Amino acid sequence: MAPGRTTAVADADIEAAVAAEAGWMEDVLARLVAAPTVLGNEEPGQAVMEQAFRDLGLEPQDIPLDAEAIRADPFSSPFSWDVSGKRNVVATWGPGGEGGRSLILNGHVDVVPPAAESLWTSPPFQPARRGDWLYGRGAADMKAGLIAMAGAVRGLRRLGVAPLAPVHLQSVVEEECTGNGALQCVLSGPRADACVIAEPHPDHITVAQVGVLWCHVDIRGAPAHAARASALGFNAIDAATTVTEALRGLEVELNRDPPPPYDAFEHPINLNPGVIRGGDWTSTVAAECTVSYRLALYPGEVPASLRQRVEETVAAAAAADPFLAEHPPVVRYDGFSCEGFALPYDEPVAVALAGAYARLLGAPPPLLATTATTDARHFVRSGIPAVCFGPRGEEIHGIDERVSISSMIQSAQVLAAFIQDWCGLTA
Amino acid sequence: MAPGRTTAVADADIEAAVAAEAGWMEDVLARLVAAPTVLGNEEPGQAVMEQAFRDLGLEPQDIPLDAEAIRADPFSSPFSWDVSGKRNVVATWGPGGEGGRSLILNGHVDVVPPAAESLWTSPPFQPARRGDWLYGRGAADMKAGLIAMAGAVRGLRRLGVAPLAPVHLQSVVEEECTGNGALQCVLSGPRADACVIAEPHPDHITVAQVGVLWCHVDIRGAPAHAARASALGFNAIDAATTVTEALRGLEVELNRDPPPPYDAFEHPINLNPGVIRGGDWTSTVAAECTVSYRLALYPGEVPASLRQRVEETVAAAAAADPFLAEHPPVVRYDGFSCEGFALPYDEPVAVALAGAYARLLGAPPPLLATTATTDARHFVRSGIPAVCFGPRGEEIHGIDERVSISSMIQSAQVLAAFIQDWCGLTA
Repeated sequence: MAPGRTTAVADADIEAAVAAEAGWMEDVLARLVAAPTVLGNEEPGQAVMEQAFRDLGLEPQDIPLDAEAIRADPFSSPFSWDVSGKRNVVATWGPGGEGGRSLILNGHVDVVPPAAESLWTSPPFQPARRGDWLYGRGAADMKAGLIAMAGAVRGLRRLGVAPLAPVHLQSVVEEECTGNGALQCVLSGPRADACVIAEPHPDHITVAQVGVLWCHVDIRGAPAHAARASALGFNAIDAATTVTEALRGLEVELNRDPPPPYDAFEHPINLNPGVIRGGDWTSTVAAECTVSYRLALYPGEVPASLRQRVEETVAAAAAADPFLAEHPPVVRYDGFSCEGFALPYDEPVAVALAGAYARLLGAPPPLLATTATTDARHFVRSGIPAVCFGPRGEEIHGIDERVSISSMIQSAQVLAAFIQDWCGLTA
Repeated sequence: MAPGRTTAVADADIEAAVAAEAGWMEDVLARLVAAPTVLGNEEPGQAVMEQAFRDLGLEPQDIPLDAEAIRADPFSSPFSWDVSGKRNVVATWGPGGEGGRSLILNGHVDVVPPAAESLWTSPPFQPARRGDWLYGRGAADMKAGLIAMAGAVRGLRRLGVAPLAPVHLQSVVEEECTGNGALQCVLSGPRADACVIAEPHPDHITVAQVGVLWCHVDIRGAPAHAARASALGFNAIDAATTVTEALRGLEVELNRDPPPPYDAFEHPINLNPGVIRGGDWTSTVAAECTVSYRLALYPGEVPASLRQRVEETVAAAAAADPFLAEHPPVVRYDGFSCEGFALPYDEPVAVALAGAYARLLGAPPPLLATTATTDARHFVRSGIPAVCFGPRGEEIHGIDERVSISSMIQSAQVLAAFIQDWCGLTA
């Protein structure tokens, strides 16, 4: 068949071709999970992804993070750490013809820390297969998704076909803290007609998400000898409880009358005190305590408004305490500060992906909202409709995080069938 | 005058001789404060004290810490760190005759951490003189006390006298965490008829102290993605507040009807959550949180009983929560686990020291109890009556800790006059 001519591959052939790559996918996934790609250590994972893209017969390229360009963008999230030397790894397949719709397949290589390494059944960065599950930090969120993306393309290439419009594969950094990796792809990478992010959103397609704000509250105390704590000191650890209680009050307010689609959730906005560090000696009244909170905002709201409410809440709590009134806690922003979005349910990429899913798996998946954020927001607000769909995981951000290997293969099959539907294929 | 003959030196001559050492004392104090002798880094301070004892014309000796011997002693406090290579530095002056009463002058070289370095007016380990005050972490607690001890001896030696019984100078480690340095002196060092510890207890003599218990509570959570915190997770940081509130209840109970001499205090038993560490990611429900608490016990009570009450309190709080009931917090002991004591007000060492103080300063000092612990307990329970008396400090364990230089000189003068009274002097 001549280049440029559209071909139609049977779904069964696509499924078989992707299934034939199962061994490669499992092997690369294990190597990827073994790379402890927490913030600041993403590179070993990107090296695995670079080789994976080469294994597809593609030529990987780097999109280096540019701190200045990121900070200049109004949709970036603030960050206090060095990003020099960090890179997204991307590769483009095709086009082998013309007339198709282009596609970005995006995933993140960074993972959250193990939460409590001692509680894991096997070490979090030693991939362990037990039955259908592969265990490891990041196995589900979202290394299996990255491999599903790559597996879909590898399966299709095994059939000797090519897309009628480019398929851009992107392995990005910093999804778990800022989204600035994906932002750099939007700034420096190609545009496309749609984006699918292979987050572990199984059995459904995610078309709406909240925004997320990270705020860090630095609380002052008055250190003194513990022996005179009640007379002389003011304990910053105790004061942290005061601040958290005030923010819990804000959380209650934020969950009152959620706008659609979040009115379907019992508690869509979660406040999470994720990290606390206070004091430096057991017998010293704590001089300092910092709590890092994660809070969310509905689509249509802007982080600046939520920041203001957080600051007002903390200020009101401080004003009610004589010491804190004189030494008000400081609210800092470092990490997520981003908006949510809600796509229409008839967004073409969602409809097309749902169609491929229904053909392969027998019934259409629901289109859902999530109470988390993903990198999809950067594509959506830049005009590239983006949805999430990917393998089944359990204990995401938890202990013994795991991903279903069969679900990874299945996701790859659905993505491959969708690529044919969306982009068109030529021999 | 022949050796062995008692001599009487006028208080004014003692005061003048000690005052003549003011320059040396200030110089050595500055060098000692510049040594950042936090736990694990005591050696630079011990090197200064070794030289200081040499400057007195004495021969310093080491009393190395022996972990096995310490752990075998029923009065030791538990510790999880390595003490190998640590030493107390001691030196003995005299005797130059016989018939006197021997004396231990004891001080600790270790200091607590700076609490919050950024809040200090000048860096905590750069000694800074402003008016009569020398600023620096440990300047008051209790490096100036160590120098007052040494200055008293150096002043007396300037007069060409010697004590009729040995005066043992001891610079010990680990007073701020276990007291195991002083314990090692009791195990390996000389006995004496009394001990004075030059803690920063100015204008009074301390004859009673509480016991102290350090307990560390490891609290489990159920980590999950913050987006689903309200449905899936159990936050260990929030649970820490539950534990602290329960222990605050115990604190209230412990302050009800204090026994004498603590009935004179409004709030003698202070609970201090001194250190908190929880969570490892802002968007992960915290899997672990550890709080380190300091609590106190009255003389006559034993740490084992307080441990039991702490454990019962934590267990009761856990039982009231479905998750904590299944994953009860673990109470660990590391650091202080010691008894208090109360000496009689007519204890000869207290009477003698008060007498010297009254002669030099015009009025007898009150004999008081403290709501802190000191190394005095090891001497007292081993049969060596011990009291505390030393320079005036401010912001002990606080920000901008400082010691009055004139008060350091004055303390040295009182100690020197007391040495004549207690030990007797010979030319």
